[in-house]
Amino acid sequence: MSAERVFLYDTTLRDGAQTQGVHFTLADKQRIALQLDRLGVDWIEGGWPGANPVDDRFFAEPPRLARARLAAFGMTRRAGRSAGNDPGLAAVLASGAPTITLVGKSSARQVEGALGATREENLEMIGDSIRAACARASEVMFDAEHFFDGFKEDPGYALACLEAAAEAGARWLVLCDTNGGTLPHEVTRICERVLARFPGDRLGIHAHNDTGNAVANSLAAVLAGVRQVQGTLNGLGERCGNADLVTLLPTLVLKLGFATGVAPRALEGLTQLSRTFDESLNRTPDRHRPYVGAAAFAHKAGLHASAVLRDPSFYEHIDPARVGNTRDILVSDQAGRANLLARLKAMGLEPTSEQLARLLSELKAREAQGFAYEDASASFELLARRTLDRVPDYFELLSFRVIDERRRNAKGELVTLAEATTKVRIGDRRFFTVAEGNGPVNALDVALRQALAPAYPSLEHMRLVDYRVRILAPERGTAAVTRVLIESADDEGRVWETVGVSGNIIDASFMALHDAITWKLLVDGVHPPTRSEHLP
Amino acid sequence: MSAERVFLYDTTLRDGAQTQGVHFTLADKQRIALQLDRLGVDWIEGGWPGANPVDDRFFAEPPRLARARLAAFGMTRRAGRSAGNDPGLAAVLASGAPTITLVGKSSARQVEGALGATREENLEMIGDSIRAACARASEVMFDAEHFFDGFKEDPGYALACLEAAAEAGARWLVLCDTNGGTLPHEVTRICERVLARFPGDRLGIHAHNDTGNAVANSLAAVLAGVRQVQGTLNGLGERCGNADLVTLLPTLVLKLGFATGVAPRALEGLTQLSRTFDESLNRTPDRHRPYVGAAAFAHKAGLHASAVLRDPSFYEHIDPARVGNTRDILVSDQAGRANLLARLKAMGLEPTSEQLARLLSELKAREAQGFAYEDASASFELLARRTLDRVPDYFELLSFRVIDERRRNAKGELVTLAEATTKVRIGDRRFFTVAEGNGPVNALDVALRQALAPAYPSLEHMRLVDYRVRILAPERGTAAVTRVLIESADDEGRVWETVGVSGNIIDASFMALHDAITWKLLVDGVHPPTRSEHLP
Repeated sequence: MSAERVFLYDTTLRDGAQTQGVHFTLADKQRIALQLDRLGVDWIEGGWPGANPVDDRFFAEPPRLARARLAAFGMTRRAGRSAGNDPGLAAVLASGAPTITLVGKSSARQVEGALGATREENLEMIGDSIRAACARASEVMFDAEHFFDGFKEDPGYALACLEAAAEAGARWLVLCDTNGGTLPHEVTRICERVLARFPGDRLGIHAHNDTGNAVANSLAAVLAGVRQVQGTLNGLGERCGNADLVTLLPTLVLKLGFATGVAPRALEGLTQLSRTFDESLNRTPDRHRPYVGAAAFAHKAGLHASAVLRDPSFYEHIDPARVGNTRDILVSDQAGRANLLARLKAMGLEPTSEQLARLLSELKAREAQGFAYEDASASFELLARRTLDRVPDYFELLSFRVIDERRRNAKGELVTLAEATTKVRIGDRRFFTVAEGNGPVNALDVALRQALAPAYPSLEHMRLVDYRVRILAPERGTAAVTRVLIESADDEGRVWETVGVSGNIIDASFMALHDAITWKLLVDGVHPPTRSEHLP
Repeated sequence: MSAERVFLYDTTLRDGAQTQGVHFTLADKQRIALQLDRLGVDWIEGGWPGANPVDDRFFAEPPRLARARLAAFGMTRRAGRSAGNDPGLAAVLASGAPTITLVGKSSARQVEGALGATREENLEMIGDSIRAACARASEVMFDAEHFFDGFKEDPGYALACLEAAAEAGARWLVLCDTNGGTLPHEVTRICERVLARFPGDRLGIHAHNDTGNAVANSLAAVLAGVRQVQGTLNGLGERCGNADLVTLLPTLVLKLGFATGVAPRALEGLTQLSRTFDESLNRTPDRHRPYVGAAAFAHKAGLHASAVLRDPSFYEHIDPARVGNTRDILVSDQAGRANLLARLKAMGLEPTSEQLARLLSELKAREAQGFAYEDASASFELLARRTLDRVPDYFELLSFRVIDERRRNAKGELVTLAEATTKVRIGDRRFFTVAEGNGPVNALDVALRQALAPAYPSLEHMRLVDYRVRILAPERGTAAVTRVLIESADDEGRVWETVGVSGNIIDASFMALHDAITWKLLVDGVHPPTRSEHLP
C-alpha cells in the first residue's frame, strides 16, 4: 500500500517576511528559494508582486528551481473595480509565476466591516479574480482568509466563497486561520464539514500560532483529509508565526507515514537547514525546537541517560539521525566522531585515533568559548590541519591599535573617525602600516592588507562579501562575547567562511580576517618567505 | 451554569529545572514559588527531596504560600526493596510537603527493559509506595511515566498500573507523555478510554513538546475530560520543554471558558510574569510567544493594520489587555499613514496633517539610511516626540574616543585592551570620564554611565539585556553600514528597544545607547538640570 501524499506549500518568503525583525534582501530570497527547492517542498510562495521592489525583482529574475513550483501571492480585486482594472491584481497576474495564489475574504462580517462590500459583491470579486488568474497561470489557488471565523459565524456563506473560487477554476482552496485563534478540535470539526463538500485533494490549511497550536491545527486538518499544508521555515511569520514546516514535516513523514516531495536523504538535512536558516538571518537557533534543536535529544546525566544508553527509544520518540540531529549525552558521542571523520576524509586527512581524540577535545574547548564551525568551514579546516598536520604562518601579528573618535571638525560638526595601525612580521621583515576606514574593522582590514600586499600579491584578488556579528550571552549587554563570521570570495569563484570569537568585537574580527587570509594563501599553494629570503 | 473547573499543577521548579542552561538557586525557587502562588496555580511541585541540596533546603524551609499546595516529587520504591527501606523514597516521605507525587512505570516494555523488574513486581512497587505516601501526606498523586507508549503496547497493563495506584489511595492519576512523541489525536483516543475507567476529576495530563504539540496534547486531554494539567512557566523543561502554562492558561479560561484558580486580575499580569521570569533567568523573552510575546499583537502589513484600527477583532483573536499585553502597530516601510496615526495616538500625540507629513518624510529618510523602527519602538517614540513636540536634552556628547589595542603584555602574551574616554555636558557642567571594558562598546557604555550617574541616579536601575548587530549592505564587507539594536530593562519591569545606524559600529552603538538612556529618563519624568542649576 503506497502512502497518501501530502503537499507542502512554503510561504517563508511571503508570510514569513512579515516577521518582526526579519528583512529579506533579494539575495536572501534567492538563496532561501534554492534551499527550499533542494528540501523538496511542492510550492514556494516567493512574495507579493507589486508590493515592494524586492518582490518585483525576485519575480523578474526568478531562481532556477529544480522541482518546486513558484507561486505569486496577491489579493482578489477590490470592490468597485473590474478584474482587468485593478493595479494590485494586475501586478500579480503579470508576474509570470506558474502558480498564482489569491487571498479573499470568506467571512460575511469581514466583508461588510473591513471591505465595506456586500456579500454578493465579494463572491463576484472572488470569481472574477480567480478567472483572471486562471487565464494567466497554469495553476490557481484561493486562500480563504478568516475561513474558520467565517465558518463559525455563517457556514453557508463561508462555503459559498469556496464555491465561487472553485467554480471560477481554483485548483486548491486553502482554509486560513488568519487570526490564529482557532483550536484543533474546531479545525477537525470544520474541515470534516468542508471535506464533505470538497472531497479529494482540493483543500489546504494555513495556520497561525497565536494559541501555540499552529502545528496541531495543521495536523488536525491533515488527519481530517486536507492534503495541502502551508507553513514557513522555523515558524517565521507575523505575530506568533505560521505553522513550522520544520516541525510538521518529520511528524507527517516519520510518525504518520505520509508521502511528501521530501526524500529521506533531504529529511536528514533538516537540522542543518533549520540552523543555517536562522544563522543567515542573524537569529539564534532555538535549542528547544522540536526535532532539530540542539537540546531536542539532549539527556541530562543520570537515570534518563543510562536508560537511553540501554535503549534509546526509552527516552527518544524518533531516531535523531533521521532528521540529521544527534543525541547529546555526557559520554563519547559516536555519531559526532563519525561525522568528524567523514569531514576530515573529505579534506584528505586520515587522522590516527589519538589525533582524532585531540581534535575532538580542541573542538569541544573552542565550542565552549563560543566558536561555531558549522558556518565557518574554512576556519574548521585550518583548525583541523593545525591540529593534525601543519599550516604555514604566513604572517605574525605583533600588535594593532584601532582608534574611534567622535569629535567636532573644523566646521563644528560632530564627525566620527576610525584609524588603525598594524605591526606584522613576514619572514624576517616587519611592516608598520596605518589606515583610515569607514569603521574600526574596515580600518583594520585596510591596514592589514597594506602590510601583506607586497609579500602576497594574490590577496588583491580576494574580497570580503559578508560580515556578520552575533552576540553570545546577550544578557550581559555590551559586555557580552562577540562572534564574527566573515565570508570571503576570490576571482576564481571560491567562497569561504571564517569565524572569530572574543569579548572584543575588533579582536574577533581580526581572528576571522586572519583565518580568511590564511585559507586563501593555503589554497593558492603560496609559501611564506623564510627568514633569510629576500622580499620584493 | 457554573464553568467546569480545571486544576493547574506547576512543575517549573522540578521538571523545568531539567532545562539545558537553567540552574535554579534556592532564592530563585523561593521567588518563583511565590509568583506562582500569586498567579493562582493549584499545586507547585517544588523539587525532588533527596536529589540535591537546593531541593532539600527548599523543603526544609518552604515558602509561605497563600493558596497553592506544595508538592514533593519522587519515585516509587526500587525493585527488591521495601517501601520502608528505600532511601530515595524515604527522603520524599520525610519532606513534610502536603502533597506527594510519585512517578512509576506504566509500560511493560519499560518495566522489563529499563527496571529489570517483572510486571507484577512493578504493580507492587506502585501500590506499596503510594500507600506509604498516603500515610505521610494529605494528598498523593501517581505520575504514570510513559503512559501513552505503554497504553499503545498493552492497554491492560497500563490500566493495571493506574489501578494499583488508585487502590493504594492515590487521589490523582497523571498520564505522562514522557518522550513527548504522542500526537493529539492519540491523546484524545487514549484519554477517552482511561476516562471510561476513571471518570470524574481523577486524571491529569503531563505533556512534553517534542513534536511541538505539548499545548495541543494538554488541550486534547482536557477536552476529553481530564481535569488536571501539568506544565511549566514559558514551557521550560528538558529537551523541547513541557507544556507551557503561560500559553495554556488563557486558552483554557478565555477561549474554552473553564474555571481555574487564576482570577481575571491575575491573568492580566500574565505578560509581565512571563517576561520577568525569563529576565530573571537571563533568557531573552520570546517575542513570538503566544498571548504574551512582544510581537503577539503586532501588526506589520499596511492592510492588516488599517483593518485593525477599524475593528481589532478582525486580526486579533482576543483582546490583548486580558493577558496584560498591548497592541503594537509596527512602523515599517510597508506601513501607511493609518498605522502611524494609531501609534502616535497611543503615545498621546495628535499631530496636525502638516506634522504628520513631516514625520513621515523624516521616517522615510531614516529608513533609507538603514534605521528600522519596528524593532525599536523607544527610538521611534523619541523621533516622533522630537519631530512633533520636544524631548529634553539630558546630556550633550562633546566627544568620545575609543582605543582597542592588541599587543604583548609584560609576560610576552598577546592581549587586547579597550579603553574609552567621553566628554559630555549636563546643564552647565562638563564631565570627562575614562573607562576600560571587555570590548569597545562596553568601555564606552561604562564611561558614559560614569559621566551621567551623579546627575541621573535612576540610571543605576537600568541595564542592557540584549545587544544585536546587523550588517547592512554586507556585500561591502567590513566597510558595510552597521545597525545596532539595544534592548534595555529596568527594575520596574519595563523593556525597551533602541536603534543606531552608522558606518562605524561604535558610533551606531553610541546612538542606540543615547536613545536608551533618554527614553528611560523621559519615562521616569526626570528633568535635566538647567544651565544655572547647581548639580549635586
